[in-house]
Amino acid sequence: MRIIGLDPGLEHTGWGVIDYDQGRLAFVAAGVIDTKPKDPTAQRLAVIDSAIDDIIKQYHPLHASVEETFVNTNSASSLKLSQARGVALCVPARLGLEVFEYATNTIKKTVVGKGHADKTQIQHMVRVLLPMAADLKPDAADALAAAICHAHHAPPQKLR
Amino acid sequence: MRIIGLDPGLEHTGWGVIDYDQGRLAFVAAGVIDTKPKDPTAQRLAVIDSAIDDIIKQYHPLHASVEETFVNTNSASSLKLSQARGVALCVPARLGLEVFEYATNTIKKTVVGKGHADKTQIQHMVRVLLPMAADLKPDAADALAAAICHAHHAPPQKLR
Repeated sequence: MRIIGLDPGLEHTGWGVIDYDQGRLAFVAAGVIDTKPKDPTAQRLAVIDSAIDDIIKQYHPLHASVEETFVNTNSASSLKLSQARGVALCVPARLGLEVFEYATNTIKKTVVGKGHADKTQIQHMVRVLLPMAADLKPDAADALAAAICHAHHAPPQKLR
Repeated sequence: MRIIGLDPGLEHTGWGVIDYDQGRLAFVAAGVIDTKPKDPTAQRLAVIDSAIDDIIKQYHPLHASVEETFVNTNSASSLKLSQARGVALCVPARLGLEVFEYATNTIKKTVVGKGHADKTQIQHMVRVLLPMAADLKPDAADALAAAICHAHHAPPQKLR
C-alpha cells in the first residue's frame, strides 16, 4: 500500500510518499512545493495543484493523508491555509485516491508519542522511522508524518 | 471579452458567463454546481473542480471574477468556504485565465448601488442588467454579479 502525505500551505506544501507493507514502513520520496509570495493567490494555488498532480502521477499512491487545518485566531492566514488545503484535498480525490484527514495532534501523537511535539522532534522521529529519508525539510517531514499516521490509523482492510 | 463569475461554496458554487463589449453586457450562461453534504469534503471539492473545468472548456472565458470570502465568526464554515474558494481560484488559473477577486460589498455596490443589498435585490438587478438571464438561482445571480462587477472595474486595456 502506497500512501502520500500532504502538509498544505500557500507558501510551502510538504509532500511525502511511503510504502506500508505488513507493519513495515519504507520511504519512497518527499519534498516541498514552494510558491512565490509576489504571485497572485490563484496562480500560487495552480502551482500547488499542478505539482501534486505530477507527484501522484509519478508515484501512484492509493491513499492520501492530509493534515487538518489548525484554526488559529489569525483569520487571514487561516483562510489562506484553507484555500491551499482545498487544493491539496481536491487533487488526490480528482485522481481517484481515497483521501483521509488527520488532526495535527493525532499525527504528532502517532509519530512522537505526544500531541504537542515541535517540528524538530517530528523531523527526528520521521528519520528514525524512515532511515532512508535523509535531509528532510520540516514541511516534508510533516507530510511524511501524516502518511505514517494514516498507516497506523487506517482500518486494516483499507491497507491491503 | 468573455468573463466567468464564480460565487464559491462547498455545497453550492454559483457560476455565470457574460460577454462584455464596449460597455454592453450580454448573458451567455449560468448555473449552480451542487455537491452532496454526505460525501467526503475531498470528493465534493473534486466535483467543483471538474465542473468549473468543464464550464471553462465549454465557454472559453478569458477572465475569472471570484467573490472574496466573507470572514465571519463561525470558523468551521469559513474554513469550508475557503477550501471551496481555493478550488474556484485554482481551476481558472490552471487553465490560463486571468483571475480577479472582488469583495462582496464591491460587487453589491456595483450591481445594486449599495454594499448591503440582499440576495433578492441582486437577483432583480442582474435580471435587469442581463434580460436574457431568466429564472436565476440566487448563487447563479451572485456569480453573474461578480462577472458584471469585473466588467465595470477592470482596467479598460484588460477588457479588449
